[in-house]
Amino acid sequence: MFGMNVELINTGTELMLGRVLNTHQQWLCRQFADLGYVVSRQVAVADSSQAIEQAVREALGRADLIVTTGGLGPTSDDLTRECLARMLGRSLREDPAVRARLEAFFKERGRPMPERMRVQAMVLEGAVVLPNAHGTAPGLALQVAPNHFRDGGRPSWLVLLPGPTRELRPMFSDVLAPLLARVLPPADGFVCRTLRTTGIGESMIEEAVAGPLRDLVKAGLDLGYCARPGQVDVRLAATGARARQWVDEAERIVTGLLGLRIYAAGEQELETVLVSRLTALGKTLALAESCTGGCVAHRLTNVPGASAVLLAGFVTYSNEAKRKFLGVQAETLARHGAVSEPVALEMAEGARRQTGADYALSVTGIAGPTGGTDAKRVGTVFVGLAGPFPTRVDRYFNPYDRETFKQVTAQQALDLLRRTAG
Amino acid sequence: MFGMNVELINTGTELMLGRVLNTHQQWLCRQFADLGYVVSRQVAVADSSQAIEQAVREALGRADLIVTTGGLGPTSDDLTRECLARMLGRSLREDPAVRARLEAFFKERGRPMPERMRVQAMVLEGAVVLPNAHGTAPGLALQVAPNHFRDGGRPSWLVLLPGPTRELRPMFSDVLAPLLARVLPPADGFVCRTLRTTGIGESMIEEAVAGPLRDLVKAGLDLGYCARPGQVDVRLAATGARARQWVDEAERIVTGLLGLRIYAAGEQELETVLVSRLTALGKTLALAESCTGGCVAHRLTNVPGASAVLLAGFVTYSNEAKRKFLGVQAETLARHGAVSEPVALEMAEGARRQTGADYALSVTGIAGPTGGTDAKRVGTVFVGLAGPFPTRVDRYFNPYDRETFKQVTAQQALDLLRRTAG
Repeated sequence: MFGMNVELINTGTELMLGRVLNTHQQWLCRQFADLGYVVSRQVAVADSSQAIEQAVREALGRADLIVTTGGLGPTSDDLTRECLARMLGRSLREDPAVRARLEAFFKERGRPMPERMRVQAMVLEGAVVLPNAHGTAPGLALQVAPNHFRDGGRPSWLVLLPGPTRELRPMFSDVLAPLLARVLPPADGFVCRTLRTTGIGESMIEEAVAGPLRDLVKAGLDLGYCARPGQVDVRLAATGARARQWVDEAERIVTGLLGLRIYAAGEQELETVLVSRLTALGKTLALAESCTGGCVAHRLTNVPGASAVLLAGFVTYSNEAKRKFLGVQAETLARHGAVSEPVALEMAEGARRQTGADYALSVTGIAGPTGGTDAKRVGTVFVGLAGPFPTRVDRYFNPYDRETFKQVTAQQALDLLRRTAG
Repeated sequence: MFGMNVELINTGTELMLGRVLNTHQQWLCRQFADLGYVVSRQVAVADSSQAIEQAVREALGRADLIVTTGGLGPTSDDLTRECLARMLGRSLREDPAVRARLEAFFKERGRPMPERMRVQAMVLEGAVVLPNAHGTAPGLALQVAPNHFRDGGRPSWLVLLPGPTRELRPMFSDVLAPLLARVLPPADGFVCRTLRTTGIGESMIEEAVAGPLRDLVKAGLDLGYCARPGQVDVRLAATGARARQWVDEAERIVTGLLGLRIYAAGEQELETVLVSRLTALGKTLALAESCTGGCVAHRLTNVPGASAVLLAGFVTYSNEAKRKFLGVQAETLARHGAVSEPVALEMAEGARRQTGADYALSVTGIAGPTGGTDAKRVGTVFVGLAGPFPTRVDRYFNPYDRETFKQVTAQQALDLLRRTAG
């Protein structure tokens, strides 16, 4: 589908033991996609010369561009530079400019340079040095002749990036991306757009949109779905001269069919959309959370500028806290139970009254694993919204593990406000 | 190093476009390591029959066990089942039990079953069905004869898991792990232990422990460090007959050197440790959060049983909310500013007084990106702890992006209580 074949190789024993999350993959794949390249394969292997060599050798047989991450540092498990030099039959020589930079780095910090740091000044014969503005190990980029591992006449570019995130990201954006634009410009236009929906299942979305999009898909539109807790993303992508036209037309069709279920065209989170909208309207919000335990507040306050919107949040797990801080009546609690429509209603109205906010959201439910009954099973939730209108309470059933339950319920609460406000 | 060769293949165009983070890799690699298997290679490819087939074909040539994730759902980009049936030359037949389960799933939810769903009842000839307790698509496990893709006489196991996290995880733990223990038991002892620390940097840890552990590392101990926001994990791993002895000895040495900086021997989060400890002590907690905006409450309430400990949480972004709900004095706010030691102190004492909790934590700071001054730069934080002792306030400086700031600050608050309580 796409002209340029890019492969990504992440090295690190901690990845294979599941001790850390591979955030390089998402970040680099994302950057490449936005620049018009698409990564066709990503591989992770341990810090072992044999595994690294095998992975790079295979990729050189297929790809126009191979990017490795990690293994360039000074410690004994940093093997990438040496093992690839051996595999490619290239010498390693100390680069005086890199050496001088290393020495300056330590001098600036008033520390002596450990001898083993010097290995980071070793550069593969014929490689372009990618300066490291935030650390010691520079990146390297080199062309590998086609006769080496690959038929077809085109050389491959092999790029070695350092592992630490705060070194890798600026090196990619400031040094590698401009280099690639010169030596390996992407073939032609790639357009990718994501429509984010909530409150509707993946298969129902497909039933609604697949037919109307059939002609565009036949023409070359790439249509994808991604379901996550509380939301489904619809991805529209295309490449070539008519890419933008196809994606625009597909967006129009999907928007017409799904309407208010779409909360963003792009990559925004629901909380970001909501903070923007409330800010634009000059409206304020209060929260009364029981089973979500602060998850709604946490998500909203991840958004810069949330302080202009969110006046206060209450996490009222106990009945006592619901009474004292939100003014929920003891009789309502006794008669209906804490997880009930009347309590959700009084929580929302209490939070609004206490804070003077324009809107107040309340959540009460049974997160589990225990606490369910026959009438109110684990997963039962009531979400209330008080505002300048009669208070509304919706009932949901979210029979998921505890963390998913909190995320999905928070999503439903935020979405109730989004659909109501403005 | 390890006897069993396991490979993981994650499918999803959204992964290759960098639209989502691949959390399956870490989780599955982690589970495998704990069961005594080590994943030697992980590959991610797009939702394309050709890419999936190529990746599985290569893995079948090398691995004893191949696990794929994703591509089993009902939509048109779910291709794994069909393309592997074709590649392996096996038929797909509808399994009546799976079909009945699908129908029951929709009936329970009072929704009609979309026709497309039926594809999920199709089972590869000879495959074991792995029931899906949390969704519609079952997993599949099948043996592939050695003559198919691999020399050496051993058949490979090929396992297909569904993509959604809340379906994949329980299926792995409850269904696949017991199956593997029977059909593909791990070769010999692999021991991996993680010591989780907070409040000390990675390089300081290495300076303290690398020397004392040198002999064990020479003998075969694998020592690794993993720095994450607000914590550093020290990983001790070994394989073979003396693995447990080496890891035990290393743990003793590291614990002796780092002492109270270690908050868990194992994989527990700090909030889990804290909820357990407070529960055991029969103590209760209240929270008064400003800049963390509910993050501390959210983390604590991710822990089942948190309701026995957390009486209430206040998210008081505004001065008005600090005064009204926590009793912070207007004069204190005016004289010292909201981000100050006296305000943190009054917030903690106010939350404790309002709720009657044994302990109360308060957090006030400047998350940024705006709001800093010369005297109080973005990243400045005060954390208060009130209890049956004079209230304590610690000052920190966390100059990170907003989400990292919230995580690190929440970690410091939770850790202040951990080090003080019990």
